[in-house]
Amino acid sequence: MATTAKQESVTYEAYMRDCPGAALLSAISTRWVSLTMCTLGIHGAPMRYSEVSRNIPGVSQKMLTQTLRSLERDGMVRRTVTPVSPVRVDYELTDLGRSLYALIAQVRDWAHENADAVDHARATYDKL
Amino acid sequence: MATTAKQESVTYEAYMRDCPGAALLSAISTRWVSLTMCTLGIHGAPMRYSEVSRNIPGVSQKMLTQTLRSLERDGMVRRTVTPVSPVRVDYELTDLGRSLYALIAQVRDWAHENADAVDHARATYDKL
Repeated sequence: MATTAKQESVTYEAYMRDCPGAALLSAISTRWVSLTMCTLGIHGAPMRYSEVSRNIPGVSQKMLTQTLRSLERDGMVRRTVTPVSPVRVDYELTDLGRSLYALIAQVRDWAHENADAVDHARATYDKL
Repeated sequence: MATTAKQESVTYEAYMRDCPGAALLSAISTRWVSLTMCTLGIHGAPMRYSEVSRNIPGVSQKMLTQTLRSLERDGMVRRTVTPVSPVRVDYELTDLGRSLYALIAQVRDWAHENADAVDHARATYDKL
């Protein structure tokens, strides 16, 4: 048990130092990535910028624009421009984005199921 | 299909507005929460502050202290103080923390498996 934990720990240390996966995990671990991925993922069809924005309370235009652009650059969101007047821009998850969304959705469901337990823990902590 | 997507969308909009789960999803979607949970989760045994810190490249003392305290307040990390000299402080995941770690570990593994695909997408985007 101790040996296994130690071996895993050494592997993980190497992972954190050298692996691009650790940098990517950091990059996608933000509130706006989680909420944007959930919004596009649950909708399951192309959405206008304004629709995405309406579904994410508290997001500023600057943050949403930055988040969508970085997700597009990362290959997780497809941005489609339709040359009508006024120009129409849609956002949807790519296959890569959907594969990540499936995991973030589990974290979202965990948060939904455990919000009461966390609230209880906070109340207990704050009384100490 | 369209009806289902619309129903899901309505449910999700209600979720985002009203549900404490959305606030909790936001709270746990940070780089330092992901990296701290991964460090404690893979180790699987109590760790000193300095050990946690060594495993998270680039984390400042201020950020790690804040992150560990908020995870302790949320009931996901147990902090144990042993009154020896100098005083010894250990951190480990609680059962609640381990249940979240299991999901974050999947996101970490996704990042590891898809880092190349994301790098490729970035290179393509940057050429445009």
